[in-house]
Amino acid sequence: MKQSVAILGATGSIGQSTLKILTEHADDYQVYALTGQHRMAELVDLCVQFQPKVVGIPTGQFNQFKTIASEKKLSPLPEIVFDESGLVAIASHPDVDIVMAAIVGAAGLLPTLSAVKSGKRVLLANKEALVMSGDLMLSEAKKTGALLLPVDSEHNAIFQCLPESYFSHRHENKQPQLGVSQILLTASGGPFLNLDQTQLEHVTPAQACKHPNWSMGQKISVDSATLMNKGLELIEACHLFSISEHFVTVVIHPQSIIHSMVQYIDGSTLAQMGNPDMCTPIAHALAWPERISTSVQALNLFDVQKLDFYPPDHEKFPALNLAREAMRVGGTAPTILNASNEIAVQAFLDGRIKFTQITDLVEQMLLQVASHIADSIETVLQVDRQVRECAMQWVEKHGVAV
Amino acid sequence: MKQSVAILGATGSIGQSTLKILTEHADDYQVYALTGQHRMAELVDLCVQFQPKVVGIPTGQFNQFKTIASEKKLSPLPEIVFDESGLVAIASHPDVDIVMAAIVGAAGLLPTLSAVKSGKRVLLANKEALVMSGDLMLSEAKKTGALLLPVDSEHNAIFQCLPESYFSHRHENKQPQLGVSQILLTASGGPFLNLDQTQLEHVTPAQACKHPNWSMGQKISVDSATLMNKGLELIEACHLFSISEHFVTVVIHPQSIIHSMVQYIDGSTLAQMGNPDMCTPIAHALAWPERISTSVQALNLFDVQKLDFYPPDHEKFPALNLAREAMRVGGTAPTILNASNEIAVQAFLDGRIKFTQITDLVEQMLLQVASHIADSIETVLQVDRQVRECAMQWVEKHGVAV
Repeated sequence: MKQSVAILGATGSIGQSTLKILTEHADDYQVYALTGQHRMAELVDLCVQFQPKVVGIPTGQFNQFKTIASEKKLSPLPEIVFDESGLVAIASHPDVDIVMAAIVGAAGLLPTLSAVKSGKRVLLANKEALVMSGDLMLSEAKKTGALLLPVDSEHNAIFQCLPESYFSHRHENKQPQLGVSQILLTASGGPFLNLDQTQLEHVTPAQACKHPNWSMGQKISVDSATLMNKGLELIEACHLFSISEHFVTVVIHPQSIIHSMVQYIDGSTLAQMGNPDMCTPIAHALAWPERISTSVQALNLFDVQKLDFYPPDHEKFPALNLAREAMRVGGTAPTILNASNEIAVQAFLDGRIKFTQITDLVEQMLLQVASHIADSIETVLQVDRQVRECAMQWVEKHGVAV
Repeated sequence: MKQSVAILGATGSIGQSTLKILTEHADDYQVYALTGQHRMAELVDLCVQFQPKVVGIPTGQFNQFKTIASEKKLSPLPEIVFDESGLVAIASHPDVDIVMAAIVGAAGLLPTLSAVKSGKRVLLANKEALVMSGDLMLSEAKKTGALLLPVDSEHNAIFQCLPESYFSHRHENKQPQLGVSQILLTASGGPFLNLDQTQLEHVTPAQACKHPNWSMGQKISVDSATLMNKGLELIEACHLFSISEHFVTVVIHPQSIIHSMVQYIDGSTLAQMGNPDMCTPIAHALAWPERISTSVQALNLFDVQKLDFYPPDHEKFPALNLAREAMRVGGTAPTILNASNEIAVQAFLDGRIKFTQITDLVEQMLLQVASHIADSIETVLQVDRQVRECAMQWVEKHGVAV
């Protein structure tokens, strides 16, 4: 029987890669729902192609969606649901087997949590959900048996380098001795790896968004340039693999051929490698523990010229240590990190603050906003709102007026 | 409860690494039996240290063993068993849980088969057993449920890069879709990787035995220099992982940091890496699917300067293609390959034939000796004897008289 897939964030690059794989495996998967935020024309095109039963859009896009759907003769019209409550309804719908959680930022939190609470297989491309509410998310997964599988290339690589039993036993009290000694989280180092501190102060949003190895959205491109992306990934890894932050080492690997590694107590290091194409981790998470084919070319080792590995420069890129600190503090500290970073990145993209002020702002928020126990999603969301306000005030005060 | 281990070939380097690990995990493992062929003083020392219940030696070494045992005050004296029948008895003894099969060459065949027939966990360091009688060995393992786990660093690496379910389901008819597209068997290339054909004709046994990355015995060092070692490993891999030879690609990787790789249909490449120390694969095979610690230092990625990968030069090193051909022919052809290679290597070590004549001899034997179906161990052993005779005649005719 075909598995039914809901894609939250269908018009983004992860959504499109997912749909490409579903097209190639149409005998095994069918699209139940697609959601989009901005690009209604693309969303309608996808509806024409994949005929989802349900579509999720913002209320404000309804007229545009209807107009384009009529122009493009979309028929039959799917059921349309709206806003966050619509996404939550899709993610928890009994007909859905697999939820691709690919909405960027805090907006993905509640729909993802809803999928977890409904015991779905959740393909996690949204890292903020785990960063903001990792403990809550994991404890819900434990209750419902939801499978939370990482689609981020690094976490998926780590997942592939861990034994299957790591996941089958993870909710049990007595785990087998799986002997992980260290997780090596690789980072490309971003576009500014070799700039000095002074140069870093003058980089532009356009430069930050030009990533050397991966084609990505603006927010994640800037995060990759500050290494905050790696900081968020570090926090995500701690939750996903139930490991404390000092077991995670970040390794700068500019070629992005090795996507991450796991070291074991017997001296083994396992690495997952591949060409940089998100279809690989998506297909892996879709089919795990089996594998399905993708059109991604296998890595040709004979083409591999050089593999470099460096420790990160914490002076130039303070984001990693800020993330570690937030993880050590725990509670709502990662939420503070994440929310202040979202505001800072937007302010940088808007030309209001300098690149180096992104982490200045995050650091200030971690110092100024008190951290609580993250005992409910309401607490998390309240802290998230509070930090965003605080951070915007900081931008008003320290940034350039627009 | 402690697991009881028999080490066939205890005085060799694999035997010693195994004993080192057992010493470090004395709460989990105990030594039941040790066997040795030549080095009686070392064997007695090991008996003093590990107090095995049984010792296996050649009849001709009995007096020497007794004398040294008395000098070194070995007490209580272990039960002593002799020759091949003694090794077979040890390998099948009901008190033994784990058999380390570390006897080099065809001599390890029957004891290893005996361990498999008795349903033991067999740690396979002897590659000839699988090369000569892979089908028989695997069909016995299927009957008894014996776990045949590779200790060779390459096969162990492949084993680590395959999913656990590859092994748990391997005897079932309906296997899950595990999606292996290619096994990349790495080879250091040996000490003569960069010599030209003329230089190769004049290399000496001493040069051949000086391996760049691993410290090994003479036979395996020469096999590593001709790449026949990789040819035997290719055949072994086909049996161990139930895969045909065209799914196995040999990759020259002079640094020996990546020990082998597996590629999947989704575009993933998994690699196992580590410092070159046999304690890692031995510990892995001992404890699988759990892990135990070793004193092997984890790979420090920041020390890794360069990782090179080349295709092998089949003109200079014909052994690989000879092995592929033997595997394609099947039946007793791999036995012919192995037996003629053992004679050729010994003749080279004895100064009777040139380095390049090793593969000449093997090629001639594959052409001259007819290949049969390998339907019983008797057939295999008969072919083995026949080829050895033929090969020795070839050496008489084409080699230097000693």
